[in-house]
Amino acid sequence: MDTARLAKQIQFIVEIDQAKQVLRQNVVIGTKRQENDAEHSWHMAVMAIILSEYSAVEDLDMLKVLKMALVHDLVEIYAGDTFCYDEAAKQDKEQREQAAAERLFSLLPSDQGLEFKELWREFEAQATPEARFTACLDRLQPLLLNYHTQGHTWQKPGVNSSKVLERNHMLKENTPVLWDYAKQVIDDAIKQGYLKL
Amino acid sequence: MDTARLAKQIQFIVEIDQAKQVLRQNVVIGTKRQENDAEHSWHMAVMAIILSEYSAVEDLDMLKVLKMALVHDLVEIYAGDTFCYDEAAKQDKEQREQAAAERLFSLLPSDQGLEFKELWREFEAQATPEARFTACLDRLQPLLLNYHTQGHTWQKPGVNSSKVLERNHMLKENTPVLWDYAKQVIDDAIKQGYLKL
Repeated sequence: MDTARLAKQIQFIVEIDQAKQVLRQNVVIGTKRQENDAEHSWHMAVMAIILSEYSAVEDLDMLKVLKMALVHDLVEIYAGDTFCYDEAAKQDKEQREQAAAERLFSLLPSDQGLEFKELWREFEAQATPEARFTACLDRLQPLLLNYHTQGHTWQKPGVNSSKVLERNHMLKENTPVLWDYAKQVIDDAIKQGYLKL
Repeated sequence: MDTARLAKQIQFIVEIDQAKQVLRQNVVIGTKRQENDAEHSWHMAVMAIILSEYSAVEDLDMLKVLKMALVHDLVEIYAGDTFCYDEAAKQDKEQREQAAAERLFSLLPSDQGLEFKELWREFEAQATPEARFTACLDRLQPLLLNYHTQGHTWQKPGVNSSKVLERNHMLKENTPVLWDYAKQVIDDAIKQGYLKL
C-alpha cells in the first residue's frame, strides 16, 4: 500500500469539495440560489449521456467526454468563475486558469495530475470532437436554466440575443440538431421578454 | 429530426435539475450548508476516476461506473433522501424508490429510460463489480465530508462508530486499501471526539 499516493489522492478529493462553493451566474430552476460548479458539472455530465446521439462526429469516446465534463471547471476553485459576457474579466482568464491548473492538479500523484491537466487542456483547446461536444453542453446547460428561470442571467447589463446566439454558435457545426433547438429557445425567450433582442 | 424524442430528453434534463434541491444529511466542508444530491454525485464520479486502482476487481467498465455514480440518486427527486442510519425510514425506501424510478425514467425516450433504470437497478442490486465499487464511493464520500466537518452527521442521535464501521464494511472486500484508510479515519474521528465509540 503506497500511503503517500493515497494521501495525495484524498487531499485532492477533499480540496475539490470547494467546487460546491464556486458560484455561477445562473440560478437553480425554481429558486433564487446561484448554481455552483459541482452542480453544473454533474448536470452537464448527465446531459452528455442523454444527448450524445446529436454529436456531428459519431463514435465519441464517451468516457473521455464524461471525465471532461466532470473536471472542466475545477480550475475555478482558485481562478473563480468568469462571466462569459464580461469582456474585461475574460482578458486575463487564461492566465489565471493556467496558474490554477498548475497548483490544483499538482496535488494529485503526478500520473493523475497529468491526466487531469490534459483533460482540462483538451477541453480549453477545443481541438477534439470530445472537447467540442462537451463545450456545446457547457453552453446548452445554462441556456436551459436561463430559459426556465425567466432569463435570469440574460437580464444582466450587456446581454442580448446576439450575444447569446454568438455564445451558442458552436452548436451549429458540432451538434446541429441542438443548434436548431437552441435557436427556438432563444426566439421564444425574446417573445416572452426573457431576453432583449 | 425527431422532435418528440428531443422534447422528452430536454424535459428529463430540466426535471432532474431538482436533484440540486434534494438535501443530504452531511454538510459541505467549511460551511453549515447541507450537501445536495447533484453535488454528491459529482464528487463521487470524480472520486471514481481517481480511486479506480483500488477496486479489488480489475478492469472495471469505468464508463458504466461514472454513469452509475451520476444517476444513482436521481430517484430521490421524488422519493427523498433516506438517512442511512434511520431504520424506520429505510423500511419503505425500496418501495418509494421503485415508484419514483418508474415515474422519473419514463420521461425519457424508452431506450434511454431503460438504460437509466438498468443503471439504477444494477447499483441497487450490488450484483456487479461496477455497482459494488460505486457503492463503496457512496460510503467513502460522506465519510470524508463528515470527518472534515468535525463529524457533522455523526453527532446525530443513534450514530456511533459501530454503525459507521458497519455502513462502510463493504469496502473491506471490494476496495481493501480504502477500507484500511476508512478504519484509520474512523479511529481518528473517535479520538477527536467527532464520533461516539
